[in-house]
Amino acid sequence: QPDLTPEQIDELNETWKHFASTVIYSTSAAASGHPGGSLSCAQLLLMLYSIMKYDPSDPSHPDRDRLVVSNGHISPGVYSALSEAGFFPAEDVIIGFRRAGTPFAGHIESVVPGVEWNTGNLGQGLSAGCASALAAKYKKKSYRTIVLMGDGEQQKGQISEARRFAMKYGLDNLFGIVDYNKLQIGGDITKIMPQNIREEWLSSGWNVIELEDGHDWQKVFAAFKKMFSGKVDNPTRPTMLLSHNTMGKGVSFMEGDAKYHGSAASSEQLKTALEDIGVENEFDFFADLRKKKMPKTKDYHREPAKFRIDTGEPRVYAADEKTDNRSGYGNALADLARLNNAKDGNTKIFAMTCDLEGSVKMNAFEKESPDYFIENGIQEHHAATFAGRLSTEGFQVFFSTFGVFGVAETYNQERLNDINHTNIKLVCTHVGLDVGEDGPTHQNIDYIGLITGLFNFSVFVPADANQTDRVIRYIADKSGNYFVAMGRSKMNMILDENGKVFFDKDYKFQPGRGEVLREGKDGYVIAIGPMVHEAMRAHDSLEKQGMSVGVINMCSVKPLDAELVGRAADTGLIVTVEDHNAHTGMGSLVANALVDAGKAPKFRKLGVTKYGGSGKPADLYKMQGMDADGIAATVLELSK
Amino acid sequence: QPDLTPEQIDELNETWKHFASTVIYSTSAAASGHPGGSLSCAQLLLMLYSIMKYDPSDPSHPDRDRLVVSNGHISPGVYSALSEAGFFPAEDVIIGFRRAGTPFAGHIESVVPGVEWNTGNLGQGLSAGCASALAAKYKKKSYRTIVLMGDGEQQKGQISEARRFAMKYGLDNLFGIVDYNKLQIGGDITKIMPQNIREEWLSSGWNVIELEDGHDWQKVFAAFKKMFSGKVDNPTRPTMLLSHNTMGKGVSFMEGDAKYHGSAASSEQLKTALEDIGVENEFDFFADLRKKKMPKTKDYHREPAKFRIDTGEPRVYAADEKTDNRSGYGNALADLARLNNAKDGNTKIFAMTCDLEGSVKMNAFEKESPDYFIENGIQEHHAATFAGRLSTEGFQVFFSTFGVFGVAETYNQERLNDINHTNIKLVCTHVGLDVGEDGPTHQNIDYIGLITGLFNFSVFVPADANQTDRVIRYIADKSGNYFVAMGRSKMNMILDENGKVFFDKDYKFQPGRGEVLREGKDGYVIAIGPMVHEAMRAHDSLEKQGMSVGVINMCSVKPLDAELVGRAADTGLIVTVEDHNAHTGMGSLVANALVDAGKAPKFRKLGVTKYGGSGKPADLYKMQGMDADGIAATVLELSK
Repeated sequence: QPDLTPEQIDELNETWKHFASTVIYSTSAAASGHPGGSLSCAQLLLMLYSIMKYDPSDPSHPDRDRLVVSNGHISPGVYSALSEAGFFPAEDVIIGFRRAGTPFAGHIESVVPGVEWNTGNLGQGLSAGCASALAAKYKKKSYRTIVLMGDGEQQKGQISEARRFAMKYGLDNLFGIVDYNKLQIGGDITKIMPQNIREEWLSSGWNVIELEDGHDWQKVFAAFKKMFSGKVDNPTRPTMLLSHNTMGKGVSFMEGDAKYHGSAASSEQLKTALEDIGVENEFDFFADLRKKKMPKTKDYHREPAKFRIDTGEPRVYAADEKTDNRSGYGNALADLARLNNAKDGNTKIFAMTCDLEGSVKMNAFEKESPDYFIENGIQEHHAATFAGRLSTEGFQVFFSTFGVFGVAETYNQERLNDINHTNIKLVCTHVGLDVGEDGPTHQNIDYIGLITGLFNFSVFVPADANQTDRVIRYIADKSGNYFVAMGRSKMNMILDENGKVFFDKDYKFQPGRGEVLREGKDGYVIAIGPMVHEAMRAHDSLEKQGMSVGVINMCSVKPLDAELVGRAADTGLIVTVEDHNAHTGMGSLVANALVDAGKAPKFRKLGVTKYGGSGKPADLYKMQGMDADGIAATVLELSK
Repeated sequence: QPDLTPEQIDELNETWKHFASTVIYSTSAAASGHPGGSLSCAQLLLMLYSIMKYDPSDPSHPDRDRLVVSNGHISPGVYSALSEAGFFPAEDVIIGFRRAGTPFAGHIESVVPGVEWNTGNLGQGLSAGCASALAAKYKKKSYRTIVLMGDGEQQKGQISEARRFAMKYGLDNLFGIVDYNKLQIGGDITKIMPQNIREEWLSSGWNVIELEDGHDWQKVFAAFKKMFSGKVDNPTRPTMLLSHNTMGKGVSFMEGDAKYHGSAASSEQLKTALEDIGVENEFDFFADLRKKKMPKTKDYHREPAKFRIDTGEPRVYAADEKTDNRSGYGNALADLARLNNAKDGNTKIFAMTCDLEGSVKMNAFEKESPDYFIENGIQEHHAATFAGRLSTEGFQVFFSTFGVFGVAETYNQERLNDINHTNIKLVCTHVGLDVGEDGPTHQNIDYIGLITGLFNFSVFVPADANQTDRVIRYIADKSGNYFVAMGRSKMNMILDENGKVFFDKDYKFQPGRGEVLREGKDGYVIAIGPMVHEAMRAHDSLEKQGMSVGVINMCSVKPLDAELVGRAADTGLIVTVEDHNAHTGMGSLVANALVDAGKAPKFRKLGVTKYGGSGKPADLYKMQGMDADGIAATVLELSK
């Protein structure tokens, strides 16, 4: 169709009136929310829903076009557009908006049918869109991925990262739209933070189409036609549509006023707003209804991912082998690739990193399955969001980098992933003082303190390559979010009292289950990761001094084995030791378990108590009293 | 001087030989480190130190040129250049490099005399440089700020944010240099993550000078002359020098091989390396010396900042007033501006935010002192690093945004600030479920769990606007890092039993000191922030039921008042309540204090136990059992 017909335009105008009144009613009924950007994007949203593929009765249809709305505060607009598209009645939006117990949150959430991705923290949407676009190529699907963004959020660095990624992977099925209304919360974007948005996108290699009036149906239609039909400078590249819009378009007092970024029309202003829109004023009816009634629309939950994955046979590292947990991880990951990625019907496994492939031991995976290895460059923020979204598109995604980059630098991206019910397998290497010579900037000593704050993540810290192997195979076919931490150094295998490997071929990893490596009568040392080895040495040295101090390996930090902590407490003495901030890690969780159980043994937490130095791990451990000598001395001091 | 003389070039070549051999000796002696980038930047570093202003006997001289090395892994190069510049003997570098107990860490640290800023996490240096450049303008100093960066790190989004900031603030005294050797850890940068570096900088508006051979002394000299003399397209703008370099330059087997990004020459390779450089092989001598001797160079510590600030008289909010802590903060901040920013001799106070000026209540400050208000745009990563560095340049810096942006999004920037011994005053608003309708993406419920992991930060959560006022005045003249958290909602003032304001004009805030708001015999509720008010209501309702349950306000979360926790425990019952993840916040710290004290009262932590919804805070609190009813019910259940 070359142009819209006058009848179509009339129909769109009528739809807009209904849309705009829903925006005004819902925000004024909630007495908060973001009408300005919603009206700014009105024509873009309505035109999108008139041309996109979707099925309101099946919001997760695999062939649907994906619209990721990165400027998640324009929720009134998104909900109103979805109601026009038939996902739910507009009334539900008006009476449910920003109300506890309904899905219609202040920033869009995917519990609203038709919403793809929870956003609200700006700058993340394009990374999520990259994942859906890349997934389409792997799944050989023709759906399109569209990412709507604000102009203010173009200031976020993560967008520049995502742009580069989209170019590298040739995502010609990815379409960006920027709501270029030149206003952000604080006012004029050229005053808040001057930026040449068009030039920045061009410098990344994208096609840029400029839409001179994003409120003119005919022009919006033409721009979309151009974009989606690939009539752009370079059809093998992604395209961004820079749409010149007006904040609050259609409501006189809101137009061009940054105040209405985040303010609703007051009761006095409602009359003008609805007159401007051209509808009757039914606000009192809806305000009254809101008091009496909850929306029928309930939270929409996608089915949890079901992965079909062959986790293979465990690799057992021999009693006299010495290797790093990273290699245990890398070998298991390569096994998983071999067993699954070439097999029809099995879930495909992606492995991805940020310029640290060798260090995180993904080379074997890449060799086995090069197509499913993703190199994100030094772009961790993008990579974390991308990995999260990709894990909701039917793939099992292992994302690995150093702990400082995968936890500390990208904590907020993982937080948003967690809220989005992703299935990320975040495996971080190089945690703790064990990183040694790279020094404090590279020593990730807060991985437990941070990740345990995310409600849907489990946290595991294996003690040797054998346990690592079993942990990796355990998480490989699970949905949900898992975090596994490991250091850098080669270590001996953990042995039982007979000198056999403790985590042998019959060992199965179980979350919430700690292991007693050595029994104790006089107390217990509870340890994780490389500190388990120090604890074992402390056990031996204390035994020589006539003390029976057991060793517990608490690989499953979350969920914690509270029952085992209770048993250990009955000896009257517990020392915890971890290559982690002593105040915020496993020891703190053990302390909490003790208080919960009403037990008060003699207790001490060992770990990192000041930023580490740069040197050999053994020297750094000694300096902080975390080595075997320090552990033994602490036990002796406590037991006095 | 138009060109270098042949004599000067000879001299530079000799210096280079010494420099390069120090790089090789130090990395090979440590058997690790980054020689490739060090040699790639050799001529740039040596030429810089031949033209910069600095005084090896006073590394903190206020008029020195600042060189921020963002690619902190090229520490062997930086240390070698500093030794050539006279800061310390090269021998100390060789025997101290990457060795515990010396300042010569694997990534550069400012305990090395002459190093400005600890880096190693890539992409942050330009933001730090912006701070020094901006500080020069405010201090009316003519020093230059130069930021050396890698080409791989150009992929980090934070650099694009910093570029924009530098343009906005007209930082013509800021000079970027990119070591464009086209290799990153994983290999060819055009394969890892294709990027048009030159175009990206140009699109931001910077001047770009291309240096076709960064190893040719004459050309390096000419490029620097052009850059520093302002012979660029637009001298009012910052300039970037894109220097085409060769990784490992001067050592045949290292040239152009990405392996030597992070690998030292082996003992077999040393001979070739030193022959290539043109020096005698003295490795055995140094390797031996390293076993016997520690460097004379000790950690260099700048003097802690001394701020001269008039903190004024407290503002007392009356017993019947209702306001938000944000306003208490904003009013105090405006007082501080009025009392100090116009007064000669007093420390100037900066206030900065990221497009949330109104929400964080900085308007009054801006009105009072517009020149010292900084608007960073929606660029939190840049802003956090920038604020940290600026706080080391003689200013007191208050940085405010919502908790999700100031804590969760920028945790790693604050971690690096903390390692850098900054003096940041991070005051975050909109924490907790108290954010209400904005929903879970905006509800920062991990501010304690995260910030308590940073060793040099204190953490305060005031209970009302009166306490907020006193906390802000308390931190206003302190050096070091402080974090203050507050919600969004208006609250009543905390009153004593006689109905008078508890935090009256005589109240002085003291870290590590909790307040007993109500005495109790049967137990204590320990609360923070808005939950203090719920606890007070629970107290009243329990009193009616004949129970004497006291209320403690634990504003000083870190340091915690462990002694007061112990006293509360003696009643046999403690319930903690906080608008924060119940597992990782104040309650967990109280649990740890209990175990440390060997006490086991009946104990329960109340707080957020799942991601919150979008609705009125009161509804959200009720849904998670954190309101007064929930607290009272928990006390009753526990006391059964």
